Order: sequence, then C-alpha cells, then structure tokens
Amino acid sequence: MKTSGNTSRERLVNAMALLLWEKGYAATSPRDVMAAAEVGQGSFYHHFSGKHELAVAALSQNISELLDQDAGTVRSSPLEELKAHLLRPRPGLKGCRIGRMTQDPKVLEDPELLSMVEDAFRATEQSWIKMIDAAIKAKELPESLDSQQLARTLTAVLQGGYVLSRAYGSQQPMDDAVHGMASMLDSLAQSHQVAGNSTA
Amino acid sequence: MKTSGNTSRERLVNAMALLLWEKGYAATSPRDVMAAAEVGQGSFYHHFSGKHELAVAALSQNISELLDQDAGTVRSSPLEELKAHLLRPRPGLKGCRIGRMTQDPKVLEDPELLSMVEDAFRATEQSWIKMIDAAIKAKELPESLDSQQLARTLTAVLQGGYVLSRAYGSQQPMDDAVHGMASMLDSLAQSHQVAGNSTA
Repeated sequence: MKTSGNTSRERLVNAMALLLWEKGYAATSPRDVMAAAEVGQGSFYHHFSGKHELAVAALSQNISELLDQDAGTVRSSPLEELKAHLLRPRPGLKGCRIGRMTQDPKVLEDPELLSMVEDAFRATEQSWIKMIDAAIKAKELPESLDSQQLARTLTAVLQGGYVLSRAYGSQQPMDDAVHGMASMLDSLAQSHQVAGNSTA
Repeated sequence: MKTSGNTSRERLVNAMALLLWEKGYAATSPRDVMAAAEVGQGSFYHHFSGKHELAVAALSQNISELLDQDAGTVRSSPLEELKAHLLRPRPGLKGCRIGRMTQDPKVLEDPELLSMVEDAFRATEQSWIKMIDAAIKAKELPESLDSQQLARTLTAVLQGGYVLSRAYGSQQPMDDAVHGMASMLDSLAQSHQVAGNSTA
C-alpha cells in the first residue's frame, strides 16, 4: 500500500486507507488523517465533505488492492490454484482490511460503507466459487460439494484465522487454520480419485 | 444467560457479561453497567475495584457458559458428535461472546482479559482435538490429517462465520460456512471408507 502520493487528495486517501486498516473507522478522526497525510483542514474540506466521504474513497482503494492480489496466477490444476490462494501469506496479527470493518460499530451504522464491505465479500466468494467449480469439473473434488457453501467455508477459515491470531497474539493459528483446510482438500482429492478408480 | 440475580454483585456480573457481548469492553462504562444492573455506585465499588475487575468476573462467567454448552452429548459415532458440535445453532449476527473480545482495542491492551480469551480458545481447541482424534481412531477420517491444525480450521470456520454474517447482515453465511465444512467431513469420511475398502 502506498503511504504517500503526489496530490493532497491522494495523500488523504492513502492515509485514510492505512488508518482504516490499523485503527478502524470509529477510532479515526479527521485530525488523525490530516496529520498522517500532512494536509491542512482547508485542503481536506476542499476535497471531501467529511470523514464519511473520505472513508468511501479509502475503503474503495483497499478493496481494489485486495481484489487485485486475488487475481489468479495459472497453476498446474484448478485445485493447485485454489490451494495457492488459500496459502498466500496473510498477516494474522494485522488483520484483514475488509473483515475488520465488520467489527466497527460506526461502519455497521453506515449503509454505504457496509454495502461496500458486503460487495467485496461477494466478489471474493465469486472467485472461490469459480475455482471450486473448476476443481469439481476436473474431478479433483467430489460433485457432492456445494460450491457456494464451500466458498463461504473458505472465506470463513481466513476471517476466523485473523480472529484466532489476535486471540493468541501469534501468526501460528492463521497458518494452522489454512494448512488444516489445505490438508482436507488434499485428502479429499486423493481419496476421491482412489474411490473413482476403484469403482471405474 | 441470566440477566438478573439475587445479590447486587450477581446483578453487576450478569449485566457486564451481557454488555461485553453486545457492546464490547471499550464501549461499556461503569455507568452503563450500574444502570443495567440497577445498582448504585457505592455498591459497585464495594464489590469491585473498577471496570477491569468486574470485566474479569463477567468474562469468566461468559467463558464458563460457553464451555458448558460445548460439553458433549453422546452420538452414534465420533464424526457424528463432531458434526453435531459444528452444526449447533449459532447466532451469526449477535457474534461470539469470546471471539468479539479480540476486536476490542481495550481488551488487546489488557493482559489479564486477553489471556482469559486465549485460554478459552485453547479449551475449545482441546475439545475439537479430542473429537477429531476419536474420529481418526474410528477410521472415519484419514490418519493423514493433523488434529491440531484441523481443530484450528474448525474454530476458524465458526469465528469467520460470525464475521461474514455481520458483513452480510444475515444468518445465512454462518449457516453456509458450517454446512460447507460438514459436507467436506462427510465426503472425506465416505471416500475414505470407500478407499479403505477398495485397498483391503
């Protein structure tokens, strides 16, 4: 994430994007953002009507950056691509810049911010669904799995991994949670193929 | 959860237990608790040195109630018991009374409260590990699974389910996440047994 920018508008958006992630929306004041962006009050209110409008721009940037990261690299098989996404490094203690918004009372009261968060989750779920459907089509995973449900299970593992990492003050629980899921997928693929062969 | 009690001490603990769950620690003032418990300031400070000491008693009560709920009923097989725990009704929008503590900045600054949260997660993980090990021993799940990792995956599905339910403003994502996991366990058990038979 960029922490500086050329124009004062960019600097404000970048500073707010970082503060939303680190401190949350409720706990961040316009004064905090102006100090972090090194931008004065006149310039702030020239570009934005207030904290809400700046937060919309900053959250939008955080979401774009996250979804860009999720854009797939091509792997040897659909299941390998799915696992590569699952096992991508995730800073457990820092938390998810989107998921943490749902724990912020002021975000829950703000329909525009909340619907951006919901849309971002829908977008990541759609990308999981595509990968799961591809793995089912390639006969790496059994057809009995519901890809919509499983997409939410995978999203939940990541979001819950952040909660556990903060509870333990350690990266380990996040790593364990995603590796536990990857092992389940591997076992499923392996025994699915063995079972398929045995009845073929 | 009880919302009233016989003594003023009990009423304070019950009121704080509910407020911790619904509003969090940072956002709850001694005044809020006294109002909810219908207890005066003199009585509050007779029983507790302040908000921290009351929160320790209240969180301890919340944790005991949660762990009591997790005490197993006997099922037809270890995997059925594991699934029964997974699929127990969980109010997605209300959130987990333990997990939500990790999102509270004032809890993260309080070593005593944080270590209670960590201990509670360890206790629930131990109970998952016992169920997973029993299912592996009963040959319902493959030996290749690491029960410590998988326990964290299961805990993460539940904690992440709460995050998703709040993001969508709906119970559905929590239900999808746990049912997706239950289907994976079923498929794994089924193809594990088919595979086991085919090589026997």
